[in-house]
Amino acid sequence: MASLDASKLEIIKTTSPKTKIPNDQLVFGKTFTDHMLEIEWTAEAGWGTPKISPYHNFSMDPAAVVLHYAFELFEGMKAYKDKDGKIRTFRPDKNMVRMNKSAARIALPTFDGGEFIKLIDQFLLVDQDFVPEGDGYSLYLRPTLIGTSSTLAVGTPDRALLYLIASPVGPLYDAKFQAVSLEATDYAVRAWPGGVGDKKLGANYAPCILPSKQAKERGYDQNLWLFGEEGYITEVGTMNVFFAFQNADGTKELTTAPLDGTILEGVTRDSILQLCKERLPKEWTVTERKFTIHEVEERAQKGQLIEAFGAGTAAVVSPIKAIGWKGKDIEVPLSTGSSGEVTASVAEWIRAIQYGDEDFEGWSRVAK
Amino acid sequence: MASLDASKLEIIKTTSPKTKIPNDQLVFGKTFTDHMLEIEWTAEAGWGTPKISPYHNFSMDPAAVVLHYAFELFEGMKAYKDKDGKIRTFRPDKNMVRMNKSAARIALPTFDGGEFIKLIDQFLLVDQDFVPEGDGYSLYLRPTLIGTSSTLAVGTPDRALLYLIASPVGPLYDAKFQAVSLEATDYAVRAWPGGVGDKKLGANYAPCILPSKQAKERGYDQNLWLFGEEGYITEVGTMNVFFAFQNADGTKELTTAPLDGTILEGVTRDSILQLCKERLPKEWTVTERKFTIHEVEERAQKGQLIEAFGAGTAAVVSPIKAIGWKGKDIEVPLSTGSSGEVTASVAEWIRAIQYGDEDFEGWSRVAK
Repeated sequence: MASLDASKLEIIKTTSPKTKIPNDQLVFGKTFTDHMLEIEWTAEAGWGTPKISPYHNFSMDPAAVVLHYAFELFEGMKAYKDKDGKIRTFRPDKNMVRMNKSAARIALPTFDGGEFIKLIDQFLLVDQDFVPEGDGYSLYLRPTLIGTSSTLAVGTPDRALLYLIASPVGPLYDAKFQAVSLEATDYAVRAWPGGVGDKKLGANYAPCILPSKQAKERGYDQNLWLFGEEGYITEVGTMNVFFAFQNADGTKELTTAPLDGTILEGVTRDSILQLCKERLPKEWTVTERKFTIHEVEERAQKGQLIEAFGAGTAAVVSPIKAIGWKGKDIEVPLSTGSSGEVTASVAEWIRAIQYGDEDFEGWSRVAK
Repeated sequence: MASLDASKLEIIKTTSPKTKIPNDQLVFGKTFTDHMLEIEWTAEAGWGTPKISPYHNFSMDPAAVVLHYAFELFEGMKAYKDKDGKIRTFRPDKNMVRMNKSAARIALPTFDGGEFIKLIDQFLLVDQDFVPEGDGYSLYLRPTLIGTSSTLAVGTPDRALLYLIASPVGPLYDAKFQAVSLEATDYAVRAWPGGVGDKKLGANYAPCILPSKQAKERGYDQNLWLFGEEGYITEVGTMNVFFAFQNADGTKELTTAPLDGTILEGVTRDSILQLCKERLPKEWTVTERKFTIHEVEERAQKGQLIEAFGAGTAAVVSPIKAIGWKGKDIEVPLSTGSSGEVTASVAEWIRAIQYGDEDFEGWSRVAK
């Protein structure tokens, strides 16, 4: 059984390069680079030869298990162009760990994440001209793993495909650093203990679209997923979520929901926790704890809710301006005009590391 | 916006028909008939021209939303050859209602189920030579609906494909009417209130494979999914589940879990409930109610557990011989040797209607 081996990479370059799209016309996830990376797996032979070749459609059996039983998972990553023109990724090792956890949970094959990172580097060098320049602009990377066995029997897939496509993107929301409104949602439930809500599976996404449409019809950008009769705040579905509170004694708290199996283990979430523990002034404590929509509402009424933001690879750091709950809006202060102060600091800390302006614990990796 | 219109059907027949496989070599869902049925949908134009054409691979963009966000759902149906050689389906209207509920829940387009049934009839006439003869043999039909938009943005698909493939099958388990053993599973959770466990979505299947593998490693055929601290019995994942109890006063009860949003609305389940209410002797009551693994264990200890069986399209009626729970087996009596008496009666009642030996409320539809 062969393991994933980056040294076997074969590259076939396109003979018909695409026209690059100007930054101001980029649409998230809609256009792709010239190439894609693919590695086939079979139960008999293990991982095959990695191939970079021109972006192309798959030839897929209508009985492929990915189309029937959701044998599919992915990662969201970004590549950034630094001021020297080098291409950088952000903590790719964390994505590989999570991707392998997702794979193991739905009986798809795991792989050597270090080897896949080397392949991503090579892919980025081939398509480096597609990495847009400028703050807020990046090449969104979509590593994907699907089961490709052709059978309607429900069982462990004996064939799979690991692949990578990439889309040049700007800020996720229309305007850079535009605060979003969320609708606190309790009538639909995204994740459950003993379920798979902490894994980046396709299965977690389609069921969230209808509640998301309904939230938009009521004027909100996204759902804030609550859990249980207590109304625990979990995440936004495409972002983890942080709340900042001021206590009566002058101390302050930045908090986010704990990794209890219902929350995606966000790389941006983890990075923000670490940075804030090191860098926020001493009146701040940084916690991972359970908290409810009722606490948020009560503390907002007391003037103790200072700010709130979402965090994820696609959105990076996204200020929150309001949370709809029981027909009313909980207003979230935006002290700098477009966000709270911690939100603005965190966004800049992350940006500086991602774009290579600053080195922090080797989080930024240069493709070479 | 065009609605689905069976009268527009176009048929292109194969020029290279496949060799038919003998009944004793059929493997569930592994080989397919000569043709497939496809209808494309776009948000702009609605439902396109239905096409029956030779079975073929799809050409699919690696960014298709079905591969990333599990925009996929299906139905399981069967076509039977009756003693006059006519091809019959079983309550296809029920499958169409459920399929449209699944579609609506994940923001895929709904369609006129009556028109799709007409198209299935035409498909069956084209591929009628693939419907195997004999009790326990049938043509398994797999209507499938997938989102095919090419974008990594998480949103409502603007393109979809409704298609049908079909596989000649024998009894689901190796031997006809072989009793199965189940492992009562509480460490993983299949469905929850506010979730999508009552819909036939791909998203409900991949997360069940790992617990299923683990149950098999411990010697059981499938999982019996429990819910909550109470240990409510829900379903088997590929089957609904019925338990028969004898009360101290001599009355008897056949029961199955209620449709509370965590249970698939099985067509076989519904049919069995209706038949048993009409046909079981007067000492029987037929109920849909919540009951727990603890009740099953306790009543088995008292000798009050008479029989148990699973029910679904693929397995039809599947006797249960044992349920593993907390390291021990709850033994289920098999009074006829291979099943309980009600199980045997129910299986025969359903079989007679499905194969057209008996007419019951128009449940069996002849393709013409």
